[in-house]
Amino acid sequence: MSRENIQIDDNGKLCHFLTIEGLQRELLTEILDTAESFSGLTGQPVKKVPLLRGKTIVNLFFEPSTRTRTTFELAEKRLSADVLNINLAASATTKGETLLDTLRNLEAMHTDMFVIRHADSGAAHFFARHAAPGVSIINAGDGRHAHPTQAMLDMFTIRRHKGEFTGLKVAIVGDILHSRVARSQIHALNILGAEEVRVVAPDTLLPSGITELGATPYHDLSEGLEDVDVVIMLRLQRERMQGAMLPSEDEYFECFGLTEKRLSAAKQDAIVMHPGPINRGVEIDSTVADGPRSVILQQVSHGIAVRMAVMSMAMQQPDLERGAE
Amino acid sequence: MSRENIQIDDNGKLCHFLTIEGLQRELLTEILDTAESFSGLTGQPVKKVPLLRGKTIVNLFFEPSTRTRTTFELAEKRLSADVLNINLAASATTKGETLLDTLRNLEAMHTDMFVIRHADSGAAHFFARHAAPGVSIINAGDGRHAHPTQAMLDMFTIRRHKGEFTGLKVAIVGDILHSRVARSQIHALNILGAEEVRVVAPDTLLPSGITELGATPYHDLSEGLEDVDVVIMLRLQRERMQGAMLPSEDEYFECFGLTEKRLSAAKQDAIVMHPGPINRGVEIDSTVADGPRSVILQQVSHGIAVRMAVMSMAMQQPDLERGAE
Amino acid sequence: MSRENIQIDDNGKLCHFLTIEGLQRELLTEILDTAESFSGLTGQPVKKVPLLRGKTIVNLFFEPSTRTRTTFELAEKRLSADVLNINLAASATTKGETLLDTLRNLEAMHTDMFVIRHADSGAAHFFARHAAPGVSIINAGDGRHAHPTQAMLDMFTIRRHKGEFTGLKVAIVGDILHSRVARSQIHALNILGAEEVRVVAPDTLLPSGITELGATPYHDLSEGLEDVDVVIMLRLQRERMQGAMLPSEDEYFECFGLTEKRLSAAKQDAIVMHPGPINRGVEIDSTVADGPRSVILQQVSHGIAVRMAVMSMAMQQPDLERGAE
Repeated sequence: MSRENIQIDDNGKLCHFLTIEGLQRELLTEILDTAESFSGLTGQPVKKVPLLRGKTIVNLFFEPSTRTRTTFELAEKRLSADVLNINLAASATTKGETLLDTLRNLEAMHTDMFVIRHADSGAAHFFARHAAPGVSIINAGDGRHAHPTQAMLDMFTIRRHKGEFTGLKVAIVGDILHSRVARSQIHALNILGAEEVRVVAPDTLLPSGITELGATPYHDLSEGLEDVDVVIMLRLQRERMQGAMLPSEDEYFECFGLTEKRLSAAKQDAIVMHPGPINRGVEIDSTVADGPRSVILQQVSHGIAVRMAVMSMAMQQPDLERGAE
Repeated sequence: MSRENIQIDDNGKLCHFLTIEGLQRELLTEILDTAESFSGLTGQPVKKVPLLRGKTIVNLFFEPSTRTRTTFELAEKRLSADVLNINLAASATTKGETLLDTLRNLEAMHTDMFVIRHADSGAAHFFARHAAPGVSIINAGDGRHAHPTQAMLDMFTIRRHKGEFTGLKVAIVGDILHSRVARSQIHALNILGAEEVRVVAPDTLLPSGITELGATPYHDLSEGLEDVDVVIMLRLQRERMQGAMLPSEDEYFECFGLTEKRLSAAKQDAIVMHPGPINRGVEIDSTVADGPRSVILQQVSHGIAVRMAVMSMAMQQPDLERGAE
Repeated sequence: MSRENIQIDDNGKLCHFLTIEGLQRELLTEILDTAESFSGLTGQPVKKVPLLRGKTIVNLFFEPSTRTRTTFELAEKRLSADVLNINLAASATTKGETLLDTLRNLEAMHTDMFVIRHADSGAAHFFARHAAPGVSIINAGDGRHAHPTQAMLDMFTIRRHKGEFTGLKVAIVGDILHSRVARSQIHALNILGAEEVRVVAPDTLLPSGITELGATPYHDLSEGLEDVDVVIMLRLQRERMQGAMLPSEDEYFECFGLTEKRLSAAKQDAIVMHPGPINRGVEIDSTVADGPRSVILQQVSHGIAVRMAVMSMAMQQPDLERGAE
């Protein structure tokens, strides 16, 4: 079974949400449309809906996270699910259990959905491949591989501001190498029909094969921002770098920090995005982060509606089962 | 906008609860009366009421706490709110985000209320000043500044036993300097009309300006307890002291520890209070802590009803909005 | 009051669940029957039932645990209770409060049930002896003493496979000395009428008085497994051993590790159990752990239904009170 197909069941419905790669434009658009139905005009999510009443969702975080875990938990509670938080960094591993045993044990508890964050690329796929039938796995970030709900909330934010993707030029700036967010964004933008996806970074922070992924590399920020509609800044993940790869913060800001001056190369109505948490004065100047073109906080708001959409779609019962209930 | 006014909206209703300072006696009395409506005769809180159904409350604790966090969470669940616990000591700060960015991100999640504990004085005010309209901030203890729900549960306990505040003499004993509880109690007692508020402590543990705050300083415990109706013992916060300030536990107990003998200076029907956790044999003798005049555990019980009262009052919708629901 | 009686109220109903020791066969059978009513044919627990709606359960864990805490929390939510998790390893103890003060404070919050895990034998009894009337204490593991809900889910698993206990031969293999699970299992098997309970371990890992407890000691694994219906493997708790007591993992596996070959001494339809987490290649070979006779994951599944049974039984109101509601 290919990586793509594991996310889609025999009826063509979403059953896991692991990666953007290989999904159809129709499905991504359905996610965005469903998220619209959960979202008010000003971005606040709707109050409680009973869609997942009686379902149990386990948030299984092997890495610490505030923003992602919190918006998932809010989304789950607004869907009326029962929520369990398990931080495994400090518990099962102290007794030396393998990941597969942990998974099998959690599955034996007959819960309905796992939201998983893990430092290893492929961890969510691993869980999905071994999950019991009817159990949904949602990837909340795995290593450098993917962070698909983040990419979808970014797409939601872009569509809210730009209406459609056709004709859009988007620049993703910064630490592409360590960014699971960037990989998911590049896939989503290409699938949704953006005209051009650029990645702007120093050579040391660009992964090989970026062109094949569907993005054009730039090494100069002003060139990369020229005439774009959307600027997506990435966090400099200093905790994942070492040695020669690691630039000084001053050097980095000098070359790749987003200032008002540099932003002027982009279209006048360009929006500025960032997955957070931001390093002020490192990858982005505060005047830009807090300025009128910044939609950074809207991204956070939209995260709830988008996660409600993904989770409710993944929990859809086939018609037969639904009829039998 | 003054510190006082930020807590009260244009309709004169409570919208945040940050500090006792500057509140009117009518409002404090309304809190106590509302708490009575949530509280059984023996102190146990009522079972679930649907007042905050569909509301989301975030408990945002930057300092560890068992008692306060637990009673807040119990109060929230008894009000039927959805509850999120975020311990930020260990998560967002590891990624180096500023407090303001953390706040803005949490606000972007469109939750209804934040209960905040923070080691810095003024943290709750900071959040309230920057909170989005309609979002309530409840101070669960900020640095040395205030712990207003603790003070109100203490007032509730006093009123249960003494009926009214007029004519009452109250002695607050111990580490006044480091106590946010003491500051809030002094304000509450004065506003509610207590006849006399005394603070009893060694010079090194008395803040300057205590008289202006509305309390009379005593350095001798027996004098300070003379004829009082209420004795409030404070915990010796050794973890916040250093050098000359730090007395030995034996020395401290010798001079300021509450024993049955010393308590005999107070009125015969005086009650003994303590915000917990108690240091037995340091600031209070076990025979007193567990004795017939101790109402220490009643304080804990009353914490739930008082917090239910404060949170339900702060979440009151203006009539217009309520009509539109 | 004896240790036994504290678990049973004046009407003969379960009010705490602390230890299997001293309980009647009828009561254990009632727990198993009630758990059946919460459990589907394939072992998955029923969806939500409103039995404990409006009740508050506090999970009070002084030791870390994933499996036990999670299945308790799932059971509580499926009973519609409100759930509070308190990890006391890191919070109250930092302020130097005694266990008794912690208990008294938690009781003052008027919650209905405490699920307690603690490293000290007798901690749950201590809580039960001091609990307020109407408050139930459930032991989720105390030191080396007891882990009664684990033993009952093991009994449930055995009954599902073997139908009844009469005539059964059961071998418990491994680190008996440090195992609260083994002690609870030995009691349960004897009360429920198993024909023979064997413990198989090296001398250094057998507690004294094991024969009086109702088990026959074996030092040779093949002899101990001869003709048994049920093999219960225990985890080698290396973290609780030191010095001469601590075997090397290779040595241990050589003598007491369960392999397919050794298992052939048991009856052909023998089942293999393990409370988890398993140490693969130490006390059990992967081919056995994952093999057709292993019911290890079924044990996890059954844990939810059995815990639902115990908690709903312990929360039964006397008829008078129920009538008054």
